[in-house]
Amino acid sequence: MTTRIVELRRGILKKNDELAAGLRGRYSAAGVLALNLVSSPGTGKTALLEWTLTELRARGARAAALVGDLETDNDARRLAASGAPVRQINTHGICHLDAEMISKHLDGWVLGDLDFLFIENVGNLVCPSSYDLGERIRVVLLSVTEGEDKPLKYPAMFNSADAAVITKMDLALPCGFDRWAALKNINEVRPGIRIFETSVKSGAGLEEWLGYLEEKRSRRVTG
Amino acid sequence: MTTRIVELRRGILKKNDELAAGLRGRYSAAGVLALNLVSSPGTGKTALLEWTLTELRARGARAAALVGDLETDNDARRLAASGAPVRQINTHGICHLDAEMISKHLDGWVLGDLDFLFIENVGNLVCPSSYDLGERIRVVLLSVTEGEDKPLKYPAMFNSADAAVITKMDLALPCGFDRWAALKNINEVRPGIRIFETSVKSGAGLEEWLGYLEEKRSRRVTG
Repeated sequence: MTTRIVELRRGILKKNDELAAGLRGRYSAAGVLALNLVSSPGTGKTALLEWTLTELRARGARAAALVGDLETDNDARRLAASGAPVRQINTHGICHLDAEMISKHLDGWVLGDLDFLFIENVGNLVCPSSYDLGERIRVVLLSVTEGEDKPLKYPAMFNSADAAVITKMDLALPCGFDRWAALKNINEVRPGIRIFETSVKSGAGLEEWLGYLEEKRSRRVTG
Repeated sequence: MTTRIVELRRGILKKNDELAAGLRGRYSAAGVLALNLVSSPGTGKTALLEWTLTELRARGARAAALVGDLETDNDARRLAASGAPVRQINTHGICHLDAEMISKHLDGWVLGDLDFLFIENVGNLVCPSSYDLGERIRVVLLSVTEGEDKPLKYPAMFNSADAAVITKMDLALPCGFDRWAALKNINEVRPGIRIFETSVKSGAGLEEWLGYLEEKRSRRVTG
């Protein structure tokens, strides 16, 4: 049975990779920067996106978001308050988003009207790592409350990421967060990765994060 | 392809259920209370177990633990400091423990020598919900840092649990934790479930948790 599972899994991932390549082409042709945000449940993907969508709009950028959860449309409702176009994807038991879900939920959106497309994945540090959504940048989030060893425990996720955002830095002191251990562990799994140390409560690191987005977006447009 | 996946998945779960039933029989015959601890990554399963194993041993109870992670033996090393027998299960990419892994890692342990067997699952609020490990009690943990809506977003996990432990209550104030919303949401998904509000830092709720374990264990022995 194991052999059949491995073969079937390869088939699924191959099909997903093909669909993701198609999406990547569409994003590229439209000049939209697509980002895939992954983390544990409750790390603060939605809180970071609330701030980011609001701030980008205030600066005249056009951003939209797709947000994945097994159930509820809580996150889409939170994000829609920013004024940005937002759609909820409910996976109903599936532990990750895949390229087909993204493709379906983009239906009717004109990608050329967007500068940024944020995809908030299902909260899960394992399964989303295998599913390419055609994104240009994969961002892994890690909160100071989760423990500094998570990169070592979930290496596939951190290794496949292009940037890491440490969240909830305002709680670093009460949590006894060991900053150097966290930075060391992230770098061990993904050497040289860009790391942002942020808090949406205190505002720490957010301008740097926004600067990174704008830099990546302008590089995308100018080539 | 979808039909084949569904069929194969059913086959895997059926095989797991059969193995789990066998484990349940072994636990029962040996008079050991088996618990399966599930949560997001970083909720504090290991911290709660460190305290629990140490305290149970101090009171003369015999407890052992199996601990699941994709990689590293960090948790086994932390738990072994309690003096209890501990074994690490590395799943190498698999997002949950299954009954076969448990069965293999019990090899050589005499279950009749134990009062409690704790199984710490891979940190993941989705996939472990489908895999019975033969446990008598499934305990879902939720930290105050993760957000009160997690039970609604991950209903299968909360609905399949027998007890819920809210962790890191010492951080409730700086996190702005809404206790009533959390209790309401847990009860909405799993009405009447026993809930413990704990902190291994402040000691809150831990005696109640230990009392629950001892009560469940003595019920198990007396019938």
